[in-house]
Amino acid sequence: MNEKQLGKYFKYDDGNIWLVENDRDNMKLEYRAKKIISSVKSTYQQIDIVELYDFGKCLVLDGAVQSTVLDGYIYNEMISHIPLVTHDKPQDVLIIGGGDCGVANEVLKYENVRKVDFVEIDELVARECIKHIPEIAGTTSKDSRVNFIFADGVKFVEDKKGCYDVILVDSSDPIGPAVQLFSREFYENVKKCLKEGGVMACQSQSPIFNKDILKNTYGILNELYPIVRPYTAVVPSYPGGMWSFTLASLKNDPLKADTSKLKPNTKYINEEIFQSCFKLSNMFKESLK
Amino acid sequence: MNEKQLGKYFKYDDGNIWLVENDRDNMKLEYRAKKIISSVKSTYQQIDIVELYDFGKCLVLDGAVQSTVLDGYIYNEMISHIPLVTHDKPQDVLIIGGGDCGVANEVLKYENVRKVDFVEIDELVARECIKHIPEIAGTTSKDSRVNFIFADGVKFVEDKKGCYDVILVDSSDPIGPAVQLFSREFYENVKKCLKEGGVMACQSQSPIFNKDILKNTYGILNELYPIVRPYTAVVPSYPGGMWSFTLASLKNDPLKADTSKLKPNTKYINEEIFQSCFKLSNMFKESLK
Repeated sequence: MNEKQLGKYFKYDDGNIWLVENDRDNMKLEYRAKKIISSVKSTYQQIDIVELYDFGKCLVLDGAVQSTVLDGYIYNEMISHIPLVTHDKPQDVLIIGGGDCGVANEVLKYENVRKVDFVEIDELVARECIKHIPEIAGTTSKDSRVNFIFADGVKFVEDKKGCYDVILVDSSDPIGPAVQLFSREFYENVKKCLKEGGVMACQSQSPIFNKDILKNTYGILNELYPIVRPYTAVVPSYPGGMWSFTLASLKNDPLKADTSKLKPNTKYINEEIFQSCFKLSNMFKESLK
Repeated sequence: MNEKQLGKYFKYDDGNIWLVENDRDNMKLEYRAKKIISSVKSTYQQIDIVELYDFGKCLVLDGAVQSTVLDGYIYNEMISHIPLVTHDKPQDVLIIGGGDCGVANEVLKYENVRKVDFVEIDELVARECIKHIPEIAGTTSKDSRVNFIFADGVKFVEDKKGCYDVILVDSSDPIGPAVQLFSREFYENVKKCLKEGGVMACQSQSPIFNKDILKNTYGILNELYPIVRPYTAVVPSYPGGMWSFTLASLKNDPLKADTSKLKPNTKYINEEIFQSCFKLSNMFKESLK
């Protein structure tokens, strides 16, 4: 492969391939890559599966690193196990987004779960990750409980009512089409989709670099639900590492959850992490005001 | 200032100044800078004080970002308040490294503390930070309890015995001269410098990218002290964000500390964070084995 054949997000330098992330205003990142495993273009975006030196295999969408084998499990475990354990008996689960299939793979660890509606707009992202990154996608494609729905999550929740025990919103950054996944209207529709006693969780961006998103998400959910708990995890491949999630619940409080129900086959989360992730620093609390 | 006058770690691009961090094997970083506030060369290193768009003012040594106004307080609070509160009544404190004066500034918040020996090898780093980054250096230079000692910390601890209640090792990355700050001999000397019931804490690098350093530090301290507790914090400007510290204590266990003694004028740490920072993820525990 010569330089001309490399995609627009890659360059050669000193005999190495580098993935160039330069879409941010104030920071440019270059990752040294061992190889580009696959490159395809969908209706929505450029999809590259790349093996990086530091992060292992990863999914790259339009030049931006999304999930890596090194740390993808942290995000995937934290957005799924916390609400699943908070709910008494989660049976019907909806996942919106999360094309790498990693969140679905975590949800499937709970035997109670009998159906997972997995709504992802870009079929090709899911297919590429199932094929090339089984470390993240796991058994998702082989589990009969999973119902793949390749559609727009925003539209999907518009006409459903009371179907799900747990809804997980695994959105990408709030730019382009994903903006609506952070809107009040979307969150209202998500609430309507929950059964009695339902729980939802979403990623709510960096408490350092996207304070407005976190504050806004927290504010909307606080108006809609009796119990809202922001929590944190560190995802090294995300900007700043520090990441926020927000759980909103109609009945059960995660602070009173029976954490012994947590599945043991995890790499990051355990009972201690479940309990401590809700402890917020002063700066985090400040950003909620 | 034209391109030729910019230091070797900076470049112009699209009318902006960029700080270029390209000393890592697998990652290159570029930060957009508002301005370069000061550039001086000491016996030891190139010292730049720069104002970045995302991180605010920061200290840059040999082209690598060390402390930023955006998040420097997280590191400085976590390495200092935890051991100071763990100790019953810290009076004599030794700080090794930490030229930005941020750790000293946190230590001075405790009125019990009557003397701070602050041993930094590069006087010019301290002088630059006191002059240009008061947001981090605080009142360190004006507090008569601080005894500035511009010397090699490794040599400094060689011939002292039983002088300090708390010793904080605020080392830079374990490359070049700082390598010795991670050696068994150094840690043995640090222990000798402690008074009865003394407590030490050090930064022990990233649990993701420097597992060997963390494991090694933990292993050595475990052989020297009855109580050793690794803990974590997220420092967004550090690689991967996730950072580890290790506390080693001759008598008091931080897990049983009276956290109400924590000073309230902090931006990150609070009682909840004190208690939760010792809760380790599965991957962190794995890296200690």
